[in-house]
Amino acid sequence: MSQAPPYASITWSGDSLGEMRVLDQTELPLNLVMRPLGSVQEVHEAIVALRVRGAPAIGIAAAYGVVVALQDSIRNRAATAVASQVARNACDYLATSRPTAVNLFWALDRMRRKIDANPSVASAVELGNLLLREARLIHDEDRSMCHAIGDYGASLFDEGFGVLTHCNTGGLATSEYGTALAAIITAHAVGKKIHVFADETRPLLQGARLTMWELQQYGVPSTLICDSMAAQVMREGKIQAVIVGADRITARGDTANKIGTYGVAVAARHHNIPFYVAAPTSTFDLSIIGGDSIPIEQRKPEEITQGLGRRTAPPDCMVYNPAFDVTPAELITAIVTERGIIHPVDEDRVRAMVEKRTA
Amino acid sequence: MSQAPPYASITWSGDSLGEMRVLDQTELPLNLVMRPLGSVQEVHEAIVALRVRGAPAIGIAAAYGVVVALQDSIRNRAATAVASQVARNACDYLATSRPTAVNLFWALDRMRRKIDANPSVASAVELGNLLLREARLIHDEDRSMCHAIGDYGASLFDEGFGVLTHCNTGGLATSEYGTALAAIITAHAVGKKIHVFADETRPLLQGARLTMWELQQYGVPSTLICDSMAAQVMREGKIQAVIVGADRITARGDTANKIGTYGVAVAARHHNIPFYVAAPTSTFDLSIIGGDSIPIEQRKPEEITQGLGRRTAPPDCMVYNPAFDVTPAELITAIVTERGIIHPVDEDRVRAMVEKRTA
Repeated sequence: MSQAPPYASITWSGDSLGEMRVLDQTELPLNLVMRPLGSVQEVHEAIVALRVRGAPAIGIAAAYGVVVALQDSIRNRAATAVASQVARNACDYLATSRPTAVNLFWALDRMRRKIDANPSVASAVELGNLLLREARLIHDEDRSMCHAIGDYGASLFDEGFGVLTHCNTGGLATSEYGTALAAIITAHAVGKKIHVFADETRPLLQGARLTMWELQQYGVPSTLICDSMAAQVMREGKIQAVIVGADRITARGDTANKIGTYGVAVAARHHNIPFYVAAPTSTFDLSIIGGDSIPIEQRKPEEITQGLGRRTAPPDCMVYNPAFDVTPAELITAIVTERGIIHPVDEDRVRAMVEKRTA
Repeated sequence: MSQAPPYASITWSGDSLGEMRVLDQTELPLNLVMRPLGSVQEVHEAIVALRVRGAPAIGIAAAYGVVVALQDSIRNRAATAVASQVARNACDYLATSRPTAVNLFWALDRMRRKIDANPSVASAVELGNLLLREARLIHDEDRSMCHAIGDYGASLFDEGFGVLTHCNTGGLATSEYGTALAAIITAHAVGKKIHVFADETRPLLQGARLTMWELQQYGVPSTLICDSMAAQVMREGKIQAVIVGADRITARGDTANKIGTYGVAVAARHHNIPFYVAAPTSTFDLSIIGGDSIPIEQRKPEEITQGLGRRTAPPDCMVYNPAFDVTPAELITAIVTERGIIHPVDEDRVRAMVEKRTA
């Protein structure tokens, strides 16, 4: 990928007293707003309200959020023990923002380990510098991850493929380019003529609002459909591959991702279309074997009954609104990681890929 | 069904100079508006704009629409040849309102045959009386049809079933009670404890706006979900049967119905859940063998990109918006008609049921 990304999901400018900003995804596709987040509460709110979303991006935002939490201690020249506790509390607090994406906990664990490994740091500002460095490292590693997943993933698409995707897995959901969308953007950049069908992704329309917008930024030919049309476009022969992201992947390869992913996987299997998951190794949770153990976030009924402006369901109706579903490994053709492609998907191959140390 | 229907989709009051009204479905679930339709143009617009929708209801509305078209001729004491031509033109015009539901053409054919069979009618008012009688007959037959389908369909549900449905197939889509929803309402009325999961049915949310509202009117326990959640609730074991309506059924049983139906059928098959279609014999088009020959209405992109108030996709994005899809007979467990249940679904059994004369 030589094309410079035309936007950034998260930026940090300056030193540990610098400024964190996120591209407010709730304002897209109509407004491009870089929102400064000046307190850990604002970072927490931005994750809860999906201003920043996507498993890798949540991890990066939370890491910077720990530095934001420390800024008052730095300004006030707080004692290092106090500053360390503030940072630890920030880790605990930010971990309560969303339950399903494991990258959040993975990033906060790294920040916590950095705090714990430096008990005799000289000052709050030095702790801040250490933590900012770790957050930047997480951010930079994510960039490399996106590029590697893009390259591996693009190899799965042949000239002329129709590729269906669900939800948003692009540069907005990561540092840049994305996971599943990186594979698409890379394939397009190297000149493969592919056409993307993007599920709008109810209830919050990340596909319509975000994926279609990102694909336009990169000039990738694309068509928006309702989630309920995915099976039909497969039946019409328009789709040769499906690729989606992941919020958590278990040791056997069961994959939690945006609600609706499972239905797409079932339809892909019915039509003998390969179904790919693209995610960094930080998305794997090897402490869980089967997908039924993944906690699934339940969100507010209003996202369905009046999530788009006006109320579209009668008052007092019961609503079921799980934010994610779990696609069992049996329905997944391969998982694309930054270290290579897991295929077929089973526990031995998952563990071998995720536990292998990078050289 | 002894319970009186608490609302009516279409009413006609008075003689052939009387008033046609439809329950404006675009105003539901927030406002219950009975909209008078005073000209054939208004009837046409009401069908195009989905103020009245649902295959059987469209047929009834079109039939009354022919009488509405004749009212000026009746008032002006037009010559019978002129009046007959006005009525014939109205049939042609109303047939252009929507392309997929065959009940529209079936009802207009009946009206046209009534005109053609009475060339020597004495006056415009007599023609109006004849045509109003035919429209009322279509309306009354639909009531009987709903009751019969309700009874046959309810027999498919056992105590404690979770039943999933898509789009709206209730009293709003017919004369009263509905087709697929009649089966549900009847099962509930006879005391079977069933729980309905209603797909919201993007893009126009007939499930959220109309089905949930109708189920509330009858007190049927129900939960609203997004279309993308249907496969997941099946996986969770919450669904024991799926029942949907139809806009056109071919001789071999391939069924055109609201977009998204096919995906639900694929998911039902994957989970070994029976998938039922409920429709009157007027919905069958025996002139077509395979479903690929059914014309599929393509609707405006704006239904997807800003159908719910504000714009939710970037400008200039390509959109695919078929209003219907076709579920092949292989995925349909049985078809419930007013004359009985077709099971298994094949051309011999379809023809036997549809061509049999009522005693």
